[in-house]
Amino acid sequence: MSNSFGRFFRVTTFGESHGPGLGVIVDGCPAGLKLDLAEIQQELDRRKPGQSQITTSRKEADQVQILSGVMDGVTLGTSIGMIIPNEDQKSNAYDNLKDLFRPSHADYTYQARYGLRDHRGGGRASNRETAARVAAGAVAKKLLSALVGSQTLAWVQQVGSLKTKMPHGQITLAQVEANAVRCPDAEMAEAMIAAITQAKTAGDSLGGVVGFKVEGLPAGLGSPVFDKLTARLGQALFSLPATRSLGFGLGEQAVLLKGSEHNDPFILRQGKVATPENRAGGVLGGISSGETLYGHLAFKPTATLFREQTTLTQDLQPVTFQASGRHDPCVLPRAVPIVEAMINLVLADELMSFTLANLDRIKKALA
Amino acid sequence: MSNSFGRFFRVTTFGESHGPGLGVIVDGCPAGLKLDLAEIQQELDRRKPGQSQITTSRKEADQVQILSGVMDGVTLGTSIGMIIPNEDQKSNAYDNLKDLFRPSHADYTYQARYGLRDHRGGGRASNRETAARVAAGAVAKKLLSALVGSQTLAWVQQVGSLKTKMPHGQITLAQVEANAVRCPDAEMAEAMIAAITQAKTAGDSLGGVVGFKVEGLPAGLGSPVFDKLTARLGQALFSLPATRSLGFGLGEQAVLLKGSEHNDPFILRQGKVATPENRAGGVLGGISSGETLYGHLAFKPTATLFREQTTLTQDLQPVTFQASGRHDPCVLPRAVPIVEAMINLVLADELMSFTLANLDRIKKALA
Amino acid sequence: MSNSFGRFFRVTTFGESHGPGLGVIVDGCPAGLKLDLAEIQQELDRRKPGQSQITTSRKEADQVQILSGVMDGVTLGTSIGMIIPNEDQKSNAYDNLKDLFRPSHADYTYQARYGLRDHRGGGRASNRETAARVAAGAVAKKLLSALVGSQTLAWVQQVGSLKTKMPHGQITLAQVEANAVRCPDAEMAEAMIAAITQAKTAGDSLGGVVGFKVEGLPAGLGSPVFDKLTARLGQALFSLPATRSLGFGLGEQAVLLKGSEHNDPFILRQGKVATPENRAGGVLGGISSGETLYGHLAFKPTATLFREQTTLTQDLQPVTFQASGRHDPCVLPRAVPIVEAMINLVLADELMSFTLANLDRIKKALA
Amino acid sequence: MSNSFGRFFRVTTFGESHGPGLGVIVDGCPAGLKLDLAEIQQELDRRKPGQSQITTSRKEADQVQILSGVMDGVTLGTSIGMIIPNEDQKSNAYDNLKDLFRPSHADYTYQARYGLRDHRGGGRASNRETAARVAAGAVAKKLLSALVGSQTLAWVQQVGSLKTKMPHGQITLAQVEANAVRCPDAEMAEAMIAAITQAKTAGDSLGGVVGFKVEGLPAGLGSPVFDKLTARLGQALFSLPATRSLGFGLGEQAVLLKGSEHNDPFILRQGKVATPENRAGGVLGGISSGETLYGHLAFKPTATLFREQTTLTQDLQPVTFQASGRHDPCVLPRAVPIVEAMINLVLADELMSFTLANLDRIKKALA
Repeated sequence: MSNSFGRFFRVTTFGESHGPGLGVIVDGCPAGLKLDLAEIQQELDRRKPGQSQITTSRKEADQVQILSGVMDGVTLGTSIGMIIPNEDQKSNAYDNLKDLFRPSHADYTYQARYGLRDHRGGGRASNRETAARVAAGAVAKKLLSALVGSQTLAWVQQVGSLKTKMPHGQITLAQVEANAVRCPDAEMAEAMIAAITQAKTAGDSLGGVVGFKVEGLPAGLGSPVFDKLTARLGQALFSLPATRSLGFGLGEQAVLLKGSEHNDPFILRQGKVATPENRAGGVLGGISSGETLYGHLAFKPTATLFREQTTLTQDLQPVTFQASGRHDPCVLPRAVPIVEAMINLVLADELMSFTLANLDRIKKALA
Repeated sequence: MSNSFGRFFRVTTFGESHGPGLGVIVDGCPAGLKLDLAEIQQELDRRKPGQSQITTSRKEADQVQILSGVMDGVTLGTSIGMIIPNEDQKSNAYDNLKDLFRPSHADYTYQARYGLRDHRGGGRASNRETAARVAAGAVAKKLLSALVGSQTLAWVQQVGSLKTKMPHGQITLAQVEANAVRCPDAEMAEAMIAAITQAKTAGDSLGGVVGFKVEGLPAGLGSPVFDKLTARLGQALFSLPATRSLGFGLGEQAVLLKGSEHNDPFILRQGKVATPENRAGGVLGGISSGETLYGHLAFKPTATLFREQTTLTQDLQPVTFQASGRHDPCVLPRAVPIVEAMINLVLADELMSFTLANLDRIKKALA
Repeated sequence: MSNSFGRFFRVTTFGESHGPGLGVIVDGCPAGLKLDLAEIQQELDRRKPGQSQITTSRKEADQVQILSGVMDGVTLGTSIGMIIPNEDQKSNAYDNLKDLFRPSHADYTYQARYGLRDHRGGGRASNRETAARVAAGAVAKKLLSALVGSQTLAWVQQVGSLKTKMPHGQITLAQVEANAVRCPDAEMAEAMIAAITQAKTAGDSLGGVVGFKVEGLPAGLGSPVFDKLTARLGQALFSLPATRSLGFGLGEQAVLLKGSEHNDPFILRQGKVATPENRAGGVLGGISSGETLYGHLAFKPTATLFREQTTLTQDLQPVTFQASGRHDPCVLPRAVPIVEAMINLVLADELMSFTLANLDRIKKALA
Repeated sequence: MSNSFGRFFRVTTFGESHGPGLGVIVDGCPAGLKLDLAEIQQELDRRKPGQSQITTSRKEADQVQILSGVMDGVTLGTSIGMIIPNEDQKSNAYDNLKDLFRPSHADYTYQARYGLRDHRGGGRASNRETAARVAAGAVAKKLLSALVGSQTLAWVQQVGSLKTKMPHGQITLAQVEANAVRCPDAEMAEAMIAAITQAKTAGDSLGGVVGFKVEGLPAGLGSPVFDKLTARLGQALFSLPATRSLGFGLGEQAVLLKGSEHNDPFILRQGKVATPENRAGGVLGGISSGETLYGHLAFKPTATLFREQTTLTQDLQPVTFQASGRHDPCVLPRAVPIVEAMINLVLADELMSFTLANLDRIKKALA
């Protein structure tokens, strides 16, 4: 069902923005994985609100609790239940929005689908829902670390029209975490922060692009034909709120090249199959090639504005309103750990699938 | 598993390019749907090779047979099995490729995943695999037609750097089918055909962009949080060979707008909830809004070139080779019905999910 | 994955006997269902330990909390998260069992599967796990009640060799709930209670048989070929701890009849299709016939004995031990609400499947 | 969906009794498995009609064809498509049954579910559907053989009231295949054949019980909590037509023992963890213990009789009719390979699940 993701390493989430809390069940995590609550919390801390001047001022500790599946710091092989209580809710900030459809939000479409909706903070459509994903993603990250040592990294590549030109090969976690906007290019980061601050002041909002890469991935991950690595990532990343565009490798720029210009001839590099340019972005036929997987994901500007807007009420009457509450003027900085989490969920799942794809591997496992 | 797609209306496919044939099982199609073999064949005819000078000269009748699930032209509610025998295979054209990894193809990655591979025509990684999807998509199309009357349309929007500026609202099926390249802009179509012909002559290839839209879709389709309409389409469309980028609504252009410029205020249009500009592309919070769903999907240039290339053999020795065989210099024209099929598979599935999303709808069904 | 059950109305559970708590996510419950916490609690109260002299003396309030998916007593269509904190744990009662494999328990097999295990109270293999199922089953019960008004009832039919001969058609909930052993036959109930008390005193245990029936089910539920109603119930009921045998209709007795004796000719009864004897148990070809669905489920005697037993340690050394802790000398009385819950989960799921099985029903839903 | 079975090794089937053919897709079979068409055919030959005087006289070659997923006798890791054309159909034998509901068949319930039905030979409800399962089961058998060398064996244990007392430990494949009824007890087999012949002559039918066992299974197979080995087998075996009762280990007889009599203390036997009696039937907590898995499955007598019966027409009018066509007077002999196939499908699937259940096994696979 639609609150589950994954086939082998499967997460199922619950939670509304203004309900008692959020939660997730991770099913299919193998027994014997060392899992430290602090490591999960660390990822949640990167996502939590109130981190800086350019994120929402909502204060949530986002303290995750493990309710099952782990004993003495090691996974049991049983389902892992985790919850994150909601704390700093100001539901009455939404009282005036109860009967109207906020523009470019999911109010109207939830109403159309379900016949009713939780109007408080967007309910299940809130970005808050992603906290549960980040908790689960931290487990996936640990699994990948234990099994293949791959490294997933995301960063803010563009905010509005401000775009860093740093090539993905040079970008490090330290650079990304060095500033509030999570852009590895320090100079550009400053400009982005200024732009976000300006938008915030104006009651306006900005969109942007998150870049991502995975290094150290073995060749062979991705399951033809419907669960190709790019297809799985396509579902995973477009399931995030506010996403508008996703590209792998050169993305849409690939269209401007001829085949003779875009093809990546295979070569040996340090005894390993590689290509000179890796234009494909580390995926061929939907399966990882062992080279760096990279791409980019575009987010629209935040729909909540602190200026007057017109819209319709639930009774289809025109109305003018202004949002109160606390919101990110730009979701990009907090989107970074969420994008990483979704990528890691896909990779953990596909690593399981890869294990089973060949008889020799299964034989070795059972030997 | 990875050869299945869909949760309620589920298709499972099989088949290699040079094996005996391709096939699909459609599971979950409701009983009572009128289903005419000719309607399915019509979609396959749009996809089949050898249609024109700018597609591959491989000749495949692609005659689909229905083996189950339909009696007297009506679906039984049981699983629908269909096969499409392979006919015009020249497997020996691949003999010289048996032991090498073609650049930008899936030879190397299949080998890495499975430890062996069908080298003939790409095996399962061949674009030929999509014939089974088109057959299934035709059933989905019929279901949508019977239930909601929505219209899915795709077209070639860009080939190399040649791009039509026709707005999606003006594009019709007749325009799309009026020329060999399936670009609704007749003038641009001519230029595209010339460009593809030129690339073909040069043994080179081109990529491009397929635009798509769905009109007449009800509001409420798409299942939060992991099966949002955009997420399902993300998986569906990125599961197609050679895809590199996917955008919904304004796509990456949304990033350049501020929230105040991008937001779509709700208005009434002919008594129906609408927006002035529908910048969101007909989806809010991952759920259809009742406005036109639109977006675009970029394909890289065909990997097979008819010129000398360098690569590695399976023993990791450098080698020079030249492809023979028959291939599309540009996959875009034949991709159009495939994109439509994948969209229709998602929509049929989400229509089922929508039916169950609200107690009142179920009550009405059972009354 | 294996902690999820259901295709349309899907539950996913977590929790170990001696961890912080148990929980469940119900995914796919339609929006608009009235759901009262007290109704869920009522089912848990029927399952909870410490109800009577013949159940375990472990005291658990088993207070369920709803964390999401419900607002103002109505389901939102989003996933419903529920938790039941663990309270009365005496984990040190298991210290002496940490390194041995209790006979006829899952200690050894969990170790074989996972390479480690939670030795405290059986961990995930504990019957305590079923509390989460009962909470989910209460939601399913509510859905069935809202949609079709069917009534699922289970009862204790046999304990050891003591067996009631009451025909299922006469059994009522009031009779079942009238005594501690949940046998509708008051006289037999007394004998059963005496037998259980005697076994308890002797440090021994008893098995038994739960009978079940569903009245008021429409014809047409059950999904050929792998999800026939009996197949789904087969999985659901054999997923319960300690189950050994399951029969539908006449069960194994059907074997002793000839076809001419076993066949149920169709007749009209009060204008409705029926049969004189309903030997089939309300299911034909795996699909409900509209007559009463009935069957029986056998449980082995509880594995925990309060007398000395021999076994092996984890190091494969012979050892003698005696259990302490608190356990049911006979699981049957508390199994009754669990069996009902599992049946209701299947029925709710198949009701959704039924809704989608026919085009006309979907049309009516969407009209 | 309901025509698929399995989570890791998944089969999806199609086909009606009187349509063009039956088929199956096996998805998730690892690459590198040697797979010989003759081995698959051999299992189908055991199931096919017309084998002896006591089975139906319908003649079907049941020649299976492999359409994909195998090259040069080795699996490719891609989906394996197989079809079995229908040949000896006499659909007009069903013309007089078109408008009536045969007693104890699925005519009425299919009509209730789907609003229409294929009346010819039972359509999808026909036992013929199981041919596709047997083809898939042969692949599972090959996989089990390559990986763990376990042996699944089924046999006819009871026909009507005739029951062999041979203990399962003594039964061999040679004994089972030595006579037409597939009862390993030669003397009892003769009596069973006589009884079936007598029933056939009388236009009547018999039911019976199939015994089954799996030897050589490793400990650790079965996925708590909903996919316990017994639960998966419960679904698999109750998905077979005409099944009424299923027991594991001592089955319902376990109820008559006290815990102190039923418990299986662990001992060492030839250095391996074992029990003196294996009353549990090789499964503890739903996970295989490494001892022989055994149980029994009861089938009702065949519903088709060659004598006059009364029933209702589709218009709910009373009617008298007599079946023509060709049918098994007792399905048991042909059920034996089908039961084995279903067990092997479960075991192959759970072997995959087992591979992923522990981090160390995955590490070994990836090393």
